[in-house]
Amino acid sequence: MADTAYQSKRDTARAWFSGLAASLRDRFERLEHEYQAESGTASEAPKFTCTTTRTKAPDGSDRGGGLMAVMRNGCLFEKIGINHSTVYGVLEEAALHRLAAGKSIRNLDRDPRFWASGVSLVAHAANPKVPAVHFNTRMFWTPVRHWFGGGADLTPCFECDADTEWFHHVLEACCARSDPGYYRQFKEWADRYFHIPHRNRARGVGGIFFDDLNSGDWEADFRFVTDVGRAFVKAYIPIVGRRADETYSESDHEKLLRMRALYAEFNLVYDRGTRFGLESGHDADAVLMSLPPVAKWP
Amino acid sequence: MADTAYQSKRDTARAWFSGLAASLRDRFERLEHEYQAESGTASEAPKFTCTTTRTKAPDGSDRGGGLMAVMRNGCLFEKIGINHSTVYGVLEEAALHRLAAGKSIRNLDRDPRFWASGVSLVAHAANPKVPAVHFNTRMFWTPVRHWFGGGADLTPCFECDADTEWFHHVLEACCARSDPGYYRQFKEWADRYFHIPHRNRARGVGGIFFDDLNSGDWEADFRFVTDVGRAFVKAYIPIVGRRADETYSESDHEKLLRMRALYAEFNLVYDRGTRFGLESGHDADAVLMSLPPVAKWP
Repeated sequence: MADTAYQSKRDTARAWFSGLAASLRDRFERLEHEYQAESGTASEAPKFTCTTTRTKAPDGSDRGGGLMAVMRNGCLFEKIGINHSTVYGVLEEAALHRLAAGKSIRNLDRDPRFWASGVSLVAHAANPKVPAVHFNTRMFWTPVRHWFGGGADLTPCFECDADTEWFHHVLEACCARSDPGYYRQFKEWADRYFHIPHRNRARGVGGIFFDDLNSGDWEADFRFVTDVGRAFVKAYIPIVGRRADETYSESDHEKLLRMRALYAEFNLVYDRGTRFGLESGHDADAVLMSLPPVAKWP
Repeated sequence: MADTAYQSKRDTARAWFSGLAASLRDRFERLEHEYQAESGTASEAPKFTCTTTRTKAPDGSDRGGGLMAVMRNGCLFEKIGINHSTVYGVLEEAALHRLAAGKSIRNLDRDPRFWASGVSLVAHAANPKVPAVHFNTRMFWTPVRHWFGGGADLTPCFECDADTEWFHHVLEACCARSDPGYYRQFKEWADRYFHIPHRNRARGVGGIFFDDLNSGDWEADFRFVTDVGRAFVKAYIPIVGRRADETYSESDHEKLLRMRALYAEFNLVYDRGTRFGLESGHDADAVLMSLPPVAKWP
């Protein structure tokens, strides 16, 4: 398939990811402000900030970049990172070998050009009763192949069946709109993916995960990816609303900091996106914005 | 080389590593108690504990184990992990491939049996002016080859030339007793190894690092490894003595927590020992005892 034939598709995908990142920034910032206004905690949050930074490859070359937004020190959210980036170029040989061993990308042996665009969000709430969440969708293109990937998963410190069921219910409905087999397939993939082998446990209560998605119908695949973006908001926000006012103890908070250490372990040791980002030389702060604000390995 | 010919060498090495771990536990525990007594901070440290745990392979099979000691909440040291372990068995195929790709171990394709024994120490001080330190020595055996590895390196939050020079001076003298070329070679190796590519910076001020050490004279190599163990104590303890009473501000402490996040990034993303430990199924708490007690990615 010719490069040019895919130029407009890449443009379409990039525009969607970029716009989705902007709307997620708005939505979560508003959520924080509404919570502060309703709960009367605005005066306690003088340090709440939302910092938006343009990111680029650290070598300064024109290999793409993006926009990283980090909200910090809210009353509802301790840290939220929302990242959009579009990167391209030629993978260095060392990165190519390491990635090939990890099966992160395929078929790049002959012509190692790549283009990738995506959006990701990780939210760490201040209250241990509010689950952390991760969402990501992306398109990857190489001269021989292109595909979509993404997913959303929930990481509660204190599990709640109603939350888990709602989160999965919304994602299931979203999947069903595209393909009757997607939910089961992508839920199982999430269960396998968000597993921490050395702790012999799941990172959280799962969700969906997909990669290498290329059904042969780019428009249908892209429509599914946009639908996952909308479903994520619908799946997560009501859970935040239900849990945000729950009380918690100091030991609950201590438990949260230990859970977050597992989160950091997963992201740094296993996560494909993190490893691809570090290998491909993208801005380390942007790649690692998913890491928890504070973590304890006591 | 026959297995049996190396049985007594393995026994000798294991006995040394185990004894060294015990003497390091004693030395650092005494150091903490002496500091508390001299500085009058004993009453501030009611929570100081030293917990010693037997570790074993998580599948419960007889594949070795060790002794993990973790000291916590001291006035001088916030967390020290001292780990001795001896592990052996047959590497699973998946672990073999991942490790081969990372070049962590060699020549295991045909007969994937291995035996490894070692001792490691990581100390995270409470005072940001006291550098963190890492020390490790180990012997690795496979049917086709055996070798030693190890090193010691210093990670100050606030660099001090006198400390750096002393630390390197002691290690240089230790290396010179075994081989005139070792220090230069192993110092450069440490500079390469303790580098965090995605941050484009060193983890600390280095030290020495060696791996794959097999000069053909097992006794000489073993003598060097024991000498590194003794040199580590001589290199680090005086630095602690000089820095422990320095005052520090809240922002110094904040800087420490950010430095520790880089420490966690290095260990989880790049460190050979950590990755080998996680892949080979050894006790995750023991493998990860080097992680800082608290880290911040604000």
